[in-house]
Amino acid sequence: MPSGSTRPSTSGLLLDLVRTAGTLSRVELAEATGLTAGTITNVMRDLIQGGLVHEVGRSPSARGTPRRLIQINPEAGFAVGAQLDRCTSTIVLVDFAGRTLATARLPGAGQNSPQHTLDTLAEHIDGLLSGAAVARDRVLGVGLVTHGPQDRARGTLLTTQPAPSWREYPLTRALSATLALPVLLENDATAAAIGEQWAGDVPTATFGVIYMASGIGGGVVVDGEVYRGRASNTIEIGHVSMDSEGAPCACGNRGCLEAIAGPSAIVAQALQDRALIARVPLSGEEDQTLADFERLARASLSGDTAAHGLIARSAHQLGLAAVTLVNLFDLDTIVLAGSAFSSAGPQYREQVARALSEYALSRELSPAKALLSANVETSAAVGGALWVLRSSATGAPGRLALPLLLTP
Amino acid sequence: MPSGSTRPSTSGLLLDLVRTAGTLSRVELAEATGLTAGTITNVMRDLIQGGLVHEVGRSPSARGTPRRLIQINPEAGFAVGAQLDRCTSTIVLVDFAGRTLATARLPGAGQNSPQHTLDTLAEHIDGLLSGAAVARDRVLGVGLVTHGPQDRARGTLLTTQPAPSWREYPLTRALSATLALPVLLENDATAAAIGEQWAGDVPTATFGVIYMASGIGGGVVVDGEVYRGRASNTIEIGHVSMDSEGAPCACGNRGCLEAIAGPSAIVAQALQDRALIARVPLSGEEDQTLADFERLARASLSGDTAAHGLIARSAHQLGLAAVTLVNLFDLDTIVLAGSAFSSAGPQYREQVARALSEYALSRELSPAKALLSANVETSAAVGGALWVLRSSATGAPGRLALPLLLTP
Repeated sequence: MPSGSTRPSTSGLLLDLVRTAGTLSRVELAEATGLTAGTITNVMRDLIQGGLVHEVGRSPSARGTPRRLIQINPEAGFAVGAQLDRCTSTIVLVDFAGRTLATARLPGAGQNSPQHTLDTLAEHIDGLLSGAAVARDRVLGVGLVTHGPQDRARGTLLTTQPAPSWREYPLTRALSATLALPVLLENDATAAAIGEQWAGDVPTATFGVIYMASGIGGGVVVDGEVYRGRASNTIEIGHVSMDSEGAPCACGNRGCLEAIAGPSAIVAQALQDRALIARVPLSGEEDQTLADFERLARASLSGDTAAHGLIARSAHQLGLAAVTLVNLFDLDTIVLAGSAFSSAGPQYREQVARALSEYALSRELSPAKALLSANVETSAAVGGALWVLRSSATGAPGRLALPLLLTP
Repeated sequence: MPSGSTRPSTSGLLLDLVRTAGTLSRVELAEATGLTAGTITNVMRDLIQGGLVHEVGRSPSARGTPRRLIQINPEAGFAVGAQLDRCTSTIVLVDFAGRTLATARLPGAGQNSPQHTLDTLAEHIDGLLSGAAVARDRVLGVGLVTHGPQDRARGTLLTTQPAPSWREYPLTRALSATLALPVLLENDATAAAIGEQWAGDVPTATFGVIYMASGIGGGVVVDGEVYRGRASNTIEIGHVSMDSEGAPCACGNRGCLEAIAGPSAIVAQALQDRALIARVPLSGEEDQTLADFERLARASLSGDTAAHGLIARSAHQLGLAAVTLVNLFDLDTIVLAGSAFSSAGPQYREQVARALSEYALSRELSPAKALLSANVETSAAVGGALWVLRSSATGAPGRLALPLLLTP
């Protein structure tokens, strides 16, 4: 197992199977896990007594007595996912069954300090909980989802993005102190992969996500399990060099995908084109990058040739990066997620599909597919909330044994 | 688990733990696997009765009776690893404990047909077995190790390299028919990763291998397990584009690492330099690429500035590719393996170390290290033989239940 992964307890594993399936019988759980009927019965008794699952009737059985079906108690607890980047934040509240109850969007970190940003985020989380009439002590925790590289164990960023004050700032400790809730740090692209897997729209258990919001990241799921490497600082596809002699990137490397084809790069290129910005007014402010990019994407959709050309070049580079992902990780499918794909998604998806069919080495064994997420704006936040649920296995809501399960 | 992986049976798992440790007690096996004492005792009884392991004395124990130690019976069976590429082949014979008993080198496929190449390989395998006085019916199988992409289940290559006749040729079926032995197909770079792990010189369980022989490939081991993706066509680092506007590569992509920095590319560049080839005569023949590259590497070591410069440029590109591997897979260490590193290894290792320390995103959390394999020429063949041993778990030597365990 990847060392950065957190192995669920038996009860956590069974909860997650039931959560994913909707309803399952004890026999099906035994078949799916290889655990003995006795183990399943014991764990289920505890989970029923703890109010985490309940029985919801019987399924017909080929022989013998009908099997009693088990379902998650959606009211057993709640989780928050909060995706944060320079331009936007998205917050979701999910119930114990993983269903999204409420969503909020607010501006991202912008030029604000980490503490101010977290305070604002905390206020909005409180507002979301009030609006949904969920008491804070019924929330298991918050999955704080942002870019990498991260030190997940310490809950800090290891980069000066978006500003030097963010580096090593104790993000999870500070947000946890403000909200009096456990907070887990997760990579945004990894969270998007978890969210896509949860949404169930990806018809394979072995896929990659290219996540584009203010920056570009990636996530990989192999046979249903998130690839974590040594410490979950994985699939930094935005910092794969597309041109080893290219312009220096802030990361120290040259010609990185993000630096030449990310939203900031596209907006910067657009700002050089006076005719284009006469037709499509852009703010040019750094915290407005995604809004500016969205304006360009809509202009491209409306037939603006210059805007279309800029996005086509970016999409071509993203397609080549998708080929790199497939050639290295041997994946079935690449899913595009993240708010930069709100309007531009179809144009990117088409280019990624073309690059995969023309260049991926394994195209003859089995061509990799390109999909556009059905939830480009929320899947990362949902993935962060799901990760909290998966990390919570035993005990009463609000006092679930989170830290026990989350030690990397 | 990666879908391309082959999960060993319980007996296979226990055999491999004992093989790796040298000796282990039943208690230590129970602790390492989480299996019950009863299961360990039952499986060990079968393995002892089958002659696959034996007891070799007792270890002191803190309390209670001393524990009986179990060791692999090295004579229980043998395996062959045969690494093949255009320029060279390396064959190794290992015993059931995984110790290398004999090694042979011969020219690679060259311009020969697949069948002729396999016939030659089979003759040399027979010669190696006779020399080591190992009867063929005591050999569990042959791990045929070559470049990808592969269809491992069918035992074929999915590429026209080294020549169109190789594509879809039934390699494992043909070699198996000639030798009357089971034959498994494995990726050379993946095999090198298995071989490096087995050699025990890599001080981490999460590492990548960059394998350079006639071509360039890669392998990744995460927490002790080989990364397989969907069908083991992984880590094709030779076909990661270093320049998306670069020259077309045979794979369909542009500016691939192998096309701009592999041995063929370096030799082609050297052949353009009349002064250099006056000092360092090169054959220029395609099947002599590795020999020519070795001459350049030795010239570089002897202080030839032009040869040094060519290899430095290649090593710089390989360093950037190592950064891509670390940024995507989040690895501790990159190991350089493959016969192209025979003389040039130290120069490449230094450049890879420099690139990782300057460019890898996670350099501040924990810098990735660059190592040169102690067995650049043999680790892929050894890995192929080890994979045969790991795939063999039950039954008598020569009739081990290989196919049962090897279904992807």
